[in-house]
Amino acid sequence: MPNIVYIATSIDGFIAKKDGGIDWLFEVPNPDGSDFGFSGFINNIDAIVMGRNTFELALRFGDWPYNKPVFVLSKTVKSVPNNLEDKVEILNQNPHAIVKELNSRKYFNLYIDGGKTIQEFLKHELIDEIIITRIPILLGEGIPLFDVLNKEQKYEHIKTDIFNNALVKSHYRKLRN
Amino acid sequence: MPNIVYIATSIDGFIAKKDGGIDWLFEVPNPDGSDFGFSGFINNIDAIVMGRNTFELALRFGDWPYNKPVFVLSKTVKSVPNNLEDKVEILNQNPHAIVKELNSRKYFNLYIDGGKTIQEFLKHELIDEIIITRIPILLGEGIPLFDVLNKEQKYEHIKTDIFNNALVKSHYRKLRN
Repeated sequence: MPNIVYIATSIDGFIAKKDGGIDWLFEVPNPDGSDFGFSGFINNIDAIVMGRNTFELALRFGDWPYNKPVFVLSKTVKSVPNNLEDKVEILNQNPHAIVKELNSRKYFNLYIDGGKTIQEFLKHELIDEIIITRIPILLGEGIPLFDVLNKEQKYEHIKTDIFNNALVKSHYRKLRN
Repeated sequence: MPNIVYIATSIDGFIAKKDGGIDWLFEVPNPDGSDFGFSGFINNIDAIVMGRNTFELALRFGDWPYNKPVFVLSKTVKSVPNNLEDKVEILNQNPHAIVKELNSRKYFNLYIDGGKTIQEFLKHELIDEIIITRIPILLGEGIPLFDVLNKEQKYEHIKTDIFNNALVKSHYRKLRN
């Protein structure tokens, strides 16, 4: 029942610029329009867990971009737009309770998305796999993927794929003691 | 005339624990005693540029670990131990002046080492290549490789090698505008 992070960062570990900008993600030449394995990943996911920031970003895409149930962690958001009522649910619980709740509803493979949500799940040692794609840029500043952890966490390297001789996508699985 | 960074970091971008500890670097199983390509790298280097911290760490190794000329950037260190007088020189100049000075002395391929020194050279846009090896661990806190930069820097991905199905070593070259 893995909780999986799937995310892209700069070489220096940022997931977005200070203003949230992610234009630099799309500057890598991609003549074949590859999704770099994302659809294969999302097909194996039962549900997506994200924070409010990521949710609000997704709302701005126009068409709703996800074909899996989305659970938004928020203390402040109370409702979702009418057209998303069967696609999105707001949850206001701690990470352990959320995983327990979703697992009880038969959502086992969870895609954990959004900077703060990922950090919160990592702090609770609730991330089982990290799939991280490094973009060949130093942003210099921005929104970091990782935050302070109370103790180190060891992972095993599953595989690394290179896309367009530019993106380095590494798949890690947490080692359980 | 490249200035090259060759360094290992945790997945979350630390080069050492808060106390400077690097024991976690050596926890990856290495039955063949591989140096993961380091000797090939160092053979092509003309000189090593490092900060005081890295120098003092190297002094603690007992045997002097470098077979190339070492230049230590320091405002405070004024002299080196007698036995290293022909191997180590102290420099107290800014990064541009140091590169100019060393190039004029026919040292062209410079290995830039040590957290603060690397950060200083990156700020001055003086790093041409970054060879970064990711260790499969989240340290959670420690001494970061990267610091804030005034502006982004784009790189091209040269290659990535995987060692012992654990280490992900990526070689990047700075794109010049």
